[in-house]
Amino acid sequence: SPPPEFFPVAHLRDAINTVLDQDGAKALAYEVSEGYLPLRATIRDYVSALGIRCSPDHVLITGGTQQGIDLVVQALLSEGDLLLTESPTYLGIIDIARTRRVQIHGIPMDDDGLRLDILENYILDRHPRLIYVMPSFQNPSGRVMPLHRRRQLINMCAEYHVPILEDGIYHEFRFEGESIAPLKAVDEQGIVIHVSGFTKNLLPGLRIGYVICDGVHYERLVRVKHAADISTPSLNQRAIHLMLERGVLAQQLERNNRELRRRRDIALAAAARHLPPGSRWSQPQGGLYLWGERPKSGPTAAELFISAIQTGVAYAIGNVFFTNGAGSYHMRINYGIQRPAEIEEGFKRLGRAWRDLAVDYAEMDKIPLL
Amino acid sequence: SPPPEFFPVAHLRDAINTVLDQDGAKALAYEVSEGYLPLRATIRDYVSALGIRCSPDHVLITGGTQQGIDLVVQALLSEGDLLLTESPTYLGIIDIARTRRVQIHGIPMDDDGLRLDILENYILDRHPRLIYVMPSFQNPSGRVMPLHRRRQLINMCAEYHVPILEDGIYHEFRFEGESIAPLKAVDEQGIVIHVSGFTKNLLPGLRIGYVICDGVHYERLVRVKHAADISTPSLNQRAIHLMLERGVLAQQLERNNRELRRRRDIALAAAARHLPPGSRWSQPQGGLYLWGERPKSGPTAAELFISAIQTGVAYAIGNVFFTNGAGSYHMRINYGIQRPAEIEEGFKRLGRAWRDLAVDYAEMDKIPLL
Repeated sequence: SPPPEFFPVAHLRDAINTVLDQDGAKALAYEVSEGYLPLRATIRDYVSALGIRCSPDHVLITGGTQQGIDLVVQALLSEGDLLLTESPTYLGIIDIARTRRVQIHGIPMDDDGLRLDILENYILDRHPRLIYVMPSFQNPSGRVMPLHRRRQLINMCAEYHVPILEDGIYHEFRFEGESIAPLKAVDEQGIVIHVSGFTKNLLPGLRIGYVICDGVHYERLVRVKHAADISTPSLNQRAIHLMLERGVLAQQLERNNRELRRRRDIALAAAARHLPPGSRWSQPQGGLYLWGERPKSGPTAAELFISAIQTGVAYAIGNVFFTNGAGSYHMRINYGIQRPAEIEEGFKRLGRAWRDLAVDYAEMDKIPLL
Repeated sequence: SPPPEFFPVAHLRDAINTVLDQDGAKALAYEVSEGYLPLRATIRDYVSALGIRCSPDHVLITGGTQQGIDLVVQALLSEGDLLLTESPTYLGIIDIARTRRVQIHGIPMDDDGLRLDILENYILDRHPRLIYVMPSFQNPSGRVMPLHRRRQLINMCAEYHVPILEDGIYHEFRFEGESIAPLKAVDEQGIVIHVSGFTKNLLPGLRIGYVICDGVHYERLVRVKHAADISTPSLNQRAIHLMLERGVLAQQLERNNRELRRRRDIALAAAARHLPPGSRWSQPQGGLYLWGERPKSGPTAAELFISAIQTGVAYAIGNVFFTNGAGSYHMRINYGIQRPAEIEEGFKRLGRAWRDLAVDYAEMDKIPLL
């Protein structure tokens, strides 16, 4: 979640009051399941700047990005079908697979993302129905898939007719380095379904996301959306639409990224200063998270978590991002949500908790195994 | 959908501005999946006036009533499981069953609702996982299940361990006669899950509904909600909460019901004046709809619909409320959404379209069958 002090509260208030002035009761009636048409057109314009070409008829408004992902899973998969993801992957897709009774399997990554050699073997053996990927600033690893691998992934999936669900939620959270086109912008075969939203970059609590896909899936998705909740709140859609029209998002992205870069630098410096040596940390060029692996000689991330909480600092335990129990020595730290002084203090406390526990572990190592 | 001229737009504007003044960014952050706690407490108070006793820990906020129904279906049923409903039933539950790949079967009704003798046979033969009912002002039939049958239904379902999903959305849309307690208020065995919302009685476009159930289902429902969309928009929850605290709903119900009664009377008088004899119409004591059956000697509801649309008047064709193709001669007319002058004019046009078609049918009857 983005830091609350970033939220454009005054812009939102103004947008809502303008919408109620202009549209009155119309802004509060049922909206069509596809979503408020002017918002769909504005999203078309917005993603066109990222290289994605689509018509408003291929944009479906959802109750946040999570709902977009869930609707796609529900539209394309039956119970027991296989869903592939990166490993580690976004917690929310694991939640969806478990509650929807869908099989989920993670494909290992290297520094460039999903390992395509492993993916191909898996496709041939197991016939997955969908591949979910987050190619830019992957949550939790922060990795970015380079353009050549994006192309290879699309070609491979097109060859085997496996749709790709691209989660683009962090795509514009880049604060250094060159932007790489979303999969959907590179896709000429209509194999990519793109989901994203205005929850991370603008206002989480308004819950406005979207799905962009070609006609073959669109109608089915609209039916699933209609069954799920009829439509996304019309007032929220209109308020976001007006904020986009007024350029609030562009300002917001610029401001967010400037501040996120600063926080990342503070986090990396604090990690180097306060944490015991031997751990490896990602050096993300964007996004909200540091992803680290700690030395296996010490406590697991879950064991450290208990001590850390007692000193008033928290992080996400690596395990939760894996579907196979891996990640015991991984941790994800959200530097985006904390103010700079808290980041520094947090790492200090984490380092202390870690050292205290590491001492116990060092002593345990000396105890002969029976 | 309720008539837009009923929407308390000024109250909403005031509530949103107050929430933003008081809570600022907090009103725009992620909300917990269970929902905004003060709203859950207010709903506890609200339903307690209807005889339902629960704690805020048993109230889950949803994105409208439709989402509440969908979450319960997803939480309790797997693909291929059997869901029972009244026949005819709410269109939205048919949508859900089809998109979730759940079997659906409608149990015939009499004037007092669901036929329990048929239900019992069906339970014994087919082991349904859930029964969905709308005991007050059922959509589309407008029927109300009397208290004795509510008790019998609960006892039967408790005996066979079949949970009941009660849709209470029209419960307070009563403009004459005595109110009958919701199933959930009568249920002492924890077999009833209650869904309702503030979409029909207050503001459709804010999409705030709720589920009330006992602990056995609650945790699972929260997990499904979290996977579905993380949470319902926090701003919308806080605005509705403030409006409830300020007594807007109570005023609104009183005003709605006064006006709905007037519209029903106009609709019944207009139906008697303008429509050909031989059709039977419901005489609802509440809700938004007239439900009618036309003589089978004339055109079907679908055939009449085409002519009606050409004269600028629409209704819902009976078929869509049945899962077995029945209802060809039924129609549902929404008198709630139209202003009185439009109701009168609408029936006039419908009567004309009907008579024109009926003439053709009368002539067809004279053509000998080959």
